[in-house]
Amino acid sequence: MSIVWEQVASQTKIESAAVSCLSLNSTMDSAPKRVRVTLGERSYDVLIGYDLLPRVGEHIRSIGLKGRALLVADEVVARIYSGIVRDSLAAAGYSVVTFTFSTGESAKSFSVLESLAEQFANAHVSRGDFVVALGGGVTGDLAGLLAGIYVRGLQLVQIPTTVMAQVDSSVGGKTAINLRAGKNLVGTFYQPRLVVVDPATLSTLGAREFNEGIAEVIKYGIIRDESLLDRLEGSLDQLDSLIERCVQIKAEIVAADEQETTGERALLNFGHTLGHGIEAVAGYGRLLHGEAISLGIRAALWLSVRHADLPPDQLTRVMALLHRYQLPTQLPEDLPIPAILETTKVDKKFTGGEIRFVLTSKLGSAFVTPGLTRADLEAALLFLRT
Amino acid sequence: MSIVWEQVASQTKIESAAVSCLSLNSTMDSAPKRVRVTLGERSYDVLIGYDLLPRVGEHIRSIGLKGRALLVADEVVARIYSGIVRDSLAAAGYSVVTFTFSTGESAKSFSVLESLAEQFANAHVSRGDFVVALGGGVTGDLAGLLAGIYVRGLQLVQIPTTVMAQVDSSVGGKTAINLRAGKNLVGTFYQPRLVVVDPATLSTLGAREFNEGIAEVIKYGIIRDESLLDRLEGSLDQLDSLIERCVQIKAEIVAADEQETTGERALLNFGHTLGHGIEAVAGYGRLLHGEAISLGIRAALWLSVRHADLPPDQLTRVMALLHRYQLPTQLPEDLPIPAILETTKVDKKFTGGEIRFVLTSKLGSAFVTPGLTRADLEAALLFLRT
Repeated sequence: MSIVWEQVASQTKIESAAVSCLSLNSTMDSAPKRVRVTLGERSYDVLIGYDLLPRVGEHIRSIGLKGRALLVADEVVARIYSGIVRDSLAAAGYSVVTFTFSTGESAKSFSVLESLAEQFANAHVSRGDFVVALGGGVTGDLAGLLAGIYVRGLQLVQIPTTVMAQVDSSVGGKTAINLRAGKNLVGTFYQPRLVVVDPATLSTLGAREFNEGIAEVIKYGIIRDESLLDRLEGSLDQLDSLIERCVQIKAEIVAADEQETTGERALLNFGHTLGHGIEAVAGYGRLLHGEAISLGIRAALWLSVRHADLPPDQLTRVMALLHRYQLPTQLPEDLPIPAILETTKVDKKFTGGEIRFVLTSKLGSAFVTPGLTRADLEAALLFLRT
Repeated sequence: MSIVWEQVASQTKIESAAVSCLSLNSTMDSAPKRVRVTLGERSYDVLIGYDLLPRVGEHIRSIGLKGRALLVADEVVARIYSGIVRDSLAAAGYSVVTFTFSTGESAKSFSVLESLAEQFANAHVSRGDFVVALGGGVTGDLAGLLAGIYVRGLQLVQIPTTVMAQVDSSVGGKTAINLRAGKNLVGTFYQPRLVVVDPATLSTLGAREFNEGIAEVIKYGIIRDESLLDRLEGSLDQLDSLIERCVQIKAEIVAADEQETTGERALLNFGHTLGHGIEAVAGYGRLLHGEAISLGIRAALWLSVRHADLPPDQLTRVMALLHRYQLPTQLPEDLPIPAILETTKVDKKFTGGEIRFVLTSKLGSAFVTPGLTRADLEAALLFLRT
């Protein structure tokens, strides 16, 4: 077991059937895997490997960042991991200032963003310093946006510590906060300089938090690589290699369409249009993001059966996977469908009065269609009640 | 007189000696002047000409913008000009939704930004729509930032209506809001698709608002083109050509250093480091931005005499100009110097523990120096008391 693993063992709470079948030490002695996100001057590496957390300082030093490290984490993640990261940064010669906020999706708000910005100002943060976003998707989105707008841009390093963040949200430069009216409506495209993924951090996730990230892995399987579904149906060892494959897909799509202009990046929104609406209407926090996406995936597959000739047994196959990872597939009765549809209208996928929806005709590939109506989406939501 | 002029005449209040010597109709029948801001794919034109406001719709149509026009203006500007702009947009086939906020520097805040973002969401704004920022520097900074972060980016048209905004803040893509701790600390580099400058709108400015903009013209004269100072010492006719020259300078500098990385763009901060500090400590609104910059210009020139061999009579020459345009040159007694210095430490010009200060050895050119100390800045502020 690595140093990280020993240090956090006392705070670890492994409840998940999914986690218990992992072989967390499978590759920890090898060099980290490296996935390049190719974006011209803004290109960067995603490093993936066990035991990377205690070496994050040297990896940041190797890409030439100077100034102070501004470590941003929620209170829970800070308690578990900020010590290791601070020590590593200090060993690499960096001064570190730590900024924390209360855990949860509600942190993706203007008020928390403003509070962190004022704390940056009080710490005399300047353009020479850089942000280290340590945590899950909420932290990456929030600290990434802060990095993008504070003094019009600070360098950014992402250290994702959840499945969700490691396979998806830390890569590709999307940052965001929520509005009352909808999720991720305010944000930037702002690429990090480096992403450091240490799968050992997943050992401290509860079952719900682990499984919600699997929803995004299922999404990658549906839109790009059916073999990911095979792996999820198997024993789920070699988590680092599973993450690497997801990051490769994300990197390819982002390199082809950084700012979601050609439509390719929109494929990553499979399951997200209705998922975001459900998440917002449930109230942030009741359903985890990945749980709402699980519902969105089921709805999108049902629409794919109706409108894109997806064989119905493929929907059944994915349903079995969602259930295996204890992801919800039924829309709670108290979430009103009209409100979800209304929220969907303010989603970013809605352009010029038309919803762009992602469908699949065959697992492993997907496409964007503008042809669906409000009635189609309503029918899909009614189906989710069953 | 143009249509614009006639329509606004009843609300016009010309109090300024400066305004009264203008020849506002000097070039209104000619084609607009056009200054190109060259930034690769993000290049755009600044159109400058009398009588452009009633034709803004056709100019926006000519660059190919689609979707709805999201007109953002403060309440005062909306009352005077939004009708003309709305009519013009409608005549060009656009639907228009208008969003207003209370006038003043205090509008450059997280709370107003959030409120406008929620209003955008309620209006079902989507990526196909575009923002039209109609007003002074505050509106351009605020609406520009909103355009940059709403659904991660909406197209933006700037229609500046003050001297300050027409010669400076509408061009170059800087957007910002203020924090309690300092001015413009949160923002983006986000270029507009088009800037439309109609000098006829300056007729509705009061003397203070007109003259504060002249502080920026003086700045351009000091850093790049001494002949601008000659023109300000003269009769100030042909305001469109004066604006054009300022925009040319700004465009050159921005094209050379869009994101203030090479140092060239930092030249535009001449007078701004201490000016921002003074403005923040005075409390936003007590001193107009250009008035604080006037004090900052005087301080920077005094430091230039001491540290860069600027001939003292050049300081005297600019002092006469500042007085001619009724700009303040004495630091009010109740603004504590330690507080101004503290604010200066959080300014964006402060990098890696060192302040980068802009000095001049000869009017018409300037340079950035890292060599000044806190004691130097303190001495300059003490000088401003005299």
